[in-house]
Amino acid sequence: MQGMSEQRDFTKGHGTENDFVLLPDPDGTGDLSAEQVRRLANRRAGIGGDGVIRVVPTRAAAEPEVRAQAGAAEWFMDYRNADGGVAEMCGNGTRVFAAYLRREGLQTGSELRIATRAGVKQVRFEDGGLIAVNLGPWRFVGQARDGTGRGAHEEAGSAAPSVAVTVGQWAPLVGTLLDLGNPHTVVRLPPGMDLDSLDLTRAPVVRPEPGSGTNVELVELLGPGALRMRVHERGVGETRSCGTGAAAAALAARRWTGDVVDVWRVEVPGGTLRVSVLPGQEVELAGPAELVADGVVRL
Amino acid sequence: MQGMSEQRDFTKGHGTENDFVLLPDPDGTGDLSAEQVRRLANRRAGIGGDGVIRVVPTRAAAEPEVRAQAGAAEWFMDYRNADGGVAEMCGNGTRVFAAYLRREGLQTGSELRIATRAGVKQVRFEDGGLIAVNLGPWRFVGQARDGTGRGAHEEAGSAAPSVAVTVGQWAPLVGTLLDLGNPHTVVRLPPGMDLDSLDLTRAPVVRPEPGSGTNVELVELLGPGALRMRVHERGVGETRSCGTGAAAAALAARRWTGDVVDVWRVEVPGGTLRVSVLPGQEVELAGPAELVADGVVRL
Repeated sequence: MQGMSEQRDFTKGHGTENDFVLLPDPDGTGDLSAEQVRRLANRRAGIGGDGVIRVVPTRAAAEPEVRAQAGAAEWFMDYRNADGGVAEMCGNGTRVFAAYLRREGLQTGSELRIATRAGVKQVRFEDGGLIAVNLGPWRFVGQARDGTGRGAHEEAGSAAPSVAVTVGQWAPLVGTLLDLGNPHTVVRLPPGMDLDSLDLTRAPVVRPEPGSGTNVELVELLGPGALRMRVHERGVGETRSCGTGAAAAALAARRWTGDVVDVWRVEVPGGTLRVSVLPGQEVELAGPAELVADGVVRL
Repeated sequence: MQGMSEQRDFTKGHGTENDFVLLPDPDGTGDLSAEQVRRLANRRAGIGGDGVIRVVPTRAAAEPEVRAQAGAAEWFMDYRNADGGVAEMCGNGTRVFAAYLRREGLQTGSELRIATRAGVKQVRFEDGGLIAVNLGPWRFVGQARDGTGRGAHEEAGSAAPSVAVTVGQWAPLVGTLLDLGNPHTVVRLPPGMDLDSLDLTRAPVVRPEPGSGTNVELVELLGPGALRMRVHERGVGETRSCGTGAAAAALAARRWTGDVVDVWRVEVPGGTLRVSVLPGQEVELAGPAELVADGVVRL
């Protein structure tokens, strides 16, 4: 725990309006208390962000299992949720983290590896400014994860496992469950149900409810390889963007449309992302990352 | 209109979590477009704030009626709402503005005058760190404004003018109308109605509705000279604090309790304010002001 009047350098950045406070910590001596994280993430009394990211040399990480990644990735994304809790990973966060490392000259070249609590993540800088991250493995819940990719791994003859999802006063809809390291329930809106007018001030009700809760994506298909979505994040509420949620929505939409299109444009309230299904049952998230401001914050 | 890649110095500050982005403009050459204000005030893609304040020498203000205040006040608070629109005044904003001028050494001494679009405002730095601003005249709507102060100016024998206010599913309550340069409707909660559990995600319904809309304060009396409140701001929604709203709540509570206590402690979700009824039908707002961060923002 550090003093109340400490000053720290910070950068504010966002990817499709999923926003973060980044704090450089080149010596690895500037760990943050949960209270400091909450104060930084507070949108009125602090800087404000969906999360706080400490930029630490991997060899200086507190956790041995993170330090073990030091041979593969020089920098560790110490990601904390706005509530102060430690988080494993954040897809849009890795993209903003990569933009920061590149701007600061801490990494050069068009590819980069980042240490996270969910293992080393591969990031690629594309011509045109997009930043792509391999989110790693995914699966429909209830299926074996055998790495064969295109749905052949499903139990023979079964439809994708589904749940009932109720949004506001509407009749229950069918939700598709996916695991991308975190749980997602993706719902395709029927004709006549307007995505923009849905009330997501309360969490959609999912029955049966997955044990640890679930993020819920509401999807309007625009055509082959294109969808619009809104997302209600577990424990947070509606957000402007969610990287793993965008990937889950694209993977579900791909399934609904016959597993033929591997690259999807995903429009979220905060912007546009691209989701690509990779060989080996992995999925990639690409999109813009902006570094908005730099300064000194008292915390 | 200025370029897209312009960089500007900024300070982020707040008073009881009513928060602002301050931009110094010592030459008066850095006017902001509505789009730039919106971008700065955006909590995810920008810095984020309830308003944006340009710190300008009064003699360099664009408006002649503001420049006319230059003899009385060296600095002009060019206040803009988060939506980009010009605003007259902001009580908590003047307190944060004053904290900034003092820290920067632009004003010394314990008193200070600030130019605003609503005229010159008097600010006082108190021992203990509170900053007090004279919000100027107030009145119960429907009453003559004759400067006599304690209710004697009301039409003989009449109760304070009132309206019906409906919050969520509750039966209509009685609201008291006040004018502090902007319109307020103050509602005293009856026993059994819990302030914390009210749903203010939608605006309370006021009948008859004042022509230009109204801010609504919901008040729980704590005792003589003390109240708790929540506020729904016209065109904004619920906020963590509202300076004129706190003053309106105290003035209404003072009336309800017999016009005997002139200094009120007002607890808002973002902190605690002090409201003092001044001689000459004026009212003062006092509270903390924090300067949280300083830096450079791209806009």
